[in-house]
Amino acid sequence: MYEGAVANLIDELGRLPGIGPKSAQRIAFHLLSSDSADVQRLVGALVEVKERVRFCAICGNVSEEAECRICRDERRNPAVICVVEEPKDVVAIEKTREFRGRYHVLGGAISPIEGVGPEELRIRELMARLADGGITELIIATDPNLEGEATATYLARLVKPMGLKVTRLASGLPVGGDLEYADEVTLGRAFEGRRLLDV
Amino acid sequence: MYEGAVANLIDELGRLPGIGPKSAQRIAFHLLSSDSADVQRLVGALVEVKERVRFCAICGNVSEEAECRICRDERRNPAVICVVEEPKDVVAIEKTREFRGRYHVLGGAISPIEGVGPEELRIRELMARLADGGITELIIATDPNLEGEATATYLARLVKPMGLKVTRLASGLPVGGDLEYADEVTLGRAFEGRRLLDV
Repeated sequence: MYEGAVANLIDELGRLPGIGPKSAQRIAFHLLSSDSADVQRLVGALVEVKERVRFCAICGNVSEEAECRICRDERRNPAVICVVEEPKDVVAIEKTREFRGRYHVLGGAISPIEGVGPEELRIRELMARLADGGITELIIATDPNLEGEATATYLARLVKPMGLKVTRLASGLPVGGDLEYADEVTLGRAFEGRRLLDV
Repeated sequence: MYEGAVANLIDELGRLPGIGPKSAQRIAFHLLSSDSADVQRLVGALVEVKERVRFCAICGNVSEEAECRICRDERRNPAVICVVEEPKDVVAIEKTREFRGRYHVLGGAISPIEGVGPEELRIRELMARLADGGITELIIATDPNLEGEATATYLARLVKPMGLKVTRLASGLPVGGDLEYADEVTLGRAFEGRRLLDV
């Protein structure tokens, strides 16, 4: 329906995650009527990200240096490693300001359905870090879903012989949420993990 | 939270219509782990669209030539002009294969709230086309909402002295829809516009 260049742009935009054909069309027409300078800024950002951003050689997080900001930060506790699935999980945890250790980004979770096995994840690299010694605790912060739980269990079993402390983030009711709207699995977990109230 | 280039890309993506901060982040990380060739194709499509696509000098539709494919098509009836708000409306109408005339793209609709008056739209260009003569019917196909209706009424009054036939697309129940789910305004319009069934 569209002529060459517009059709091609709609096509390329439609390949992005979460962008359907309607959104792709809307974005394409928005860009068509935008200033060339605005589009040039977007193009520049795309080119720059591919040129400058790589993955940290230690933790696998995104970084503009060979080693990321967190791995280079001497003030962060190197004895505690928090294992996450994706770089965006690092951002989410950093926002809490609760954690002052280091990270390890797996690059996903074990998912037989999607054909992701342990060898597709950065587990070998994690084992190498643990073998170097000096690590006292491994906090497994994979997602609280089927794949994340499977990955957590797999990792816990794998590192068990090393005798270090392995923990998992608590599951329970979201703060500020409403008990009656919690799904039964979450509510069950909240019971399981109930804590003694010191009053 | 993110370092330079990633933060910048998330920022630029977040400026696109319909892309919130979460989607921008998801797309950015998708692009980070994509092949450079894929990102290069997207960049190429963006650059090409801004270089090659312009607006048809006659109807205002998007085009890679000075005049668009439809305006250049001798087989299309030049005596009937269908007025639409945006290029995507041309695409939608072309898909029906019901219309064989020409178009005029206004570039929006009159909206006092958004500060869009008649002088922001391609109405002067439309009047020039009508003044050239040879036009017998003007089909006003602006959106069936407040702004579209206001624009239709404005145009109908403006061209009235010219004595040509001015029509508006029918409003009514969507085909394949369910009567009980139609809103009352649509249902009211459907009654207003009821047709004699010839059986």
